[in-house]
Amino acid sequence: MGMIVREFAAEDRDSVRRMLVDCQAFSEEEVRIALDMVEAGLQGDYSLLVVEADGQVQGYACLGRAPLTASAWYLYWICVTPAGQGRGAGRMLQAGAEQLVRAAGGDRIVIETSGRPDYERTRRFYRNAGFAEVGRIPDFYKPADDCMVFCKVLNGGGAT
Amino acid sequence: MGMIVREFAAEDRDSVRRMLVDCQAFSEEEVRIALDMVEAGLQGDYSLLVVEADGQVQGYACLGRAPLTASAWYLYWICVTPAGQGRGAGRMLQAGAEQLVRAAGGDRIVIETSGRPDYERTRRFYRNAGFAEVGRIPDFYKPADDCMVFCKVLNGGGAT
Repeated sequence: MGMIVREFAAEDRDSVRRMLVDCQAFSEEEVRIALDMVEAGLQGDYSLLVVEADGQVQGYACLGRAPLTASAWYLYWICVTPAGQGRGAGRMLQAGAEQLVRAAGGDRIVIETSGRPDYERTRRFYRNAGFAEVGRIPDFYKPADDCMVFCKVLNGGGAT
Repeated sequence: MGMIVREFAAEDRDSVRRMLVDCQAFSEEEVRIALDMVEAGLQGDYSLLVVEADGQVQGYACLGRAPLTASAWYLYWICVTPAGQGRGAGRMLQAGAEQLVRAAGGDRIVIETSGRPDYERTRRFYRNAGFAEVGRIPDFYKPADDCMVFCKVLNGGGAT
């Protein structure tokens, strides 16, 4: 199927900016923060991955070690272009992120997402990927918009 | 009782460095990160408060708006010197933090702390202050060291 996950390169910035807008899941502030974290990632503060299908970037992920933990990581952002959705780009990216975390000695990944009804597909994606709900902060983002916390324990640490 | 809560000043750095070590609750990495956040706070990235009794700094708190939320705040650090513990310095600092959040238009405070048995006093402090447990990430900090998430909804928004 010609789909690969690779490290993010500076040239991917424009693709990522476009997909963050096109996927229509993110507010202006979210897009701005996501792009700030891409820049910080290029400086080494976060790990960045992209998924490519037939030479086209179709998604990216931004993750990083959780400070003050022995081996937990946060998956901060994961975004797939409308064209890449439903074609397995998200699953491939998620698998690449897990491989990266394991290779770095990590053993669990935490993600935070919205409890809003229109995020049900996102939550199902994480549940299907093996994440369990471990927390729910009522009205965290705004009234009627809870923060849901998911965690996945990775089996078999070390590089795979 | 001569106890006041006031804004943090650059001159308070040394007191804070000492109390982070003396309170014996924090690892070297935690002390380093806490001090980095004090510097960032002095640059305006976080809000910093100290509590003083009889002219002596007895505790400090570091808090900030939670990104991507309408009105949630994180209370990142709260630390009281051994001399200030049991004398209400923590409660006074906590009340000062809530007042600051309300005055800035915030309406809820989230804190993360350890689930280890030796943190029971800390958790009791938050529960007594009106925080409710909203999440628990198993083995987040390290094996047998969960992350517990607490949240307090502040009643009556606006400056008080």
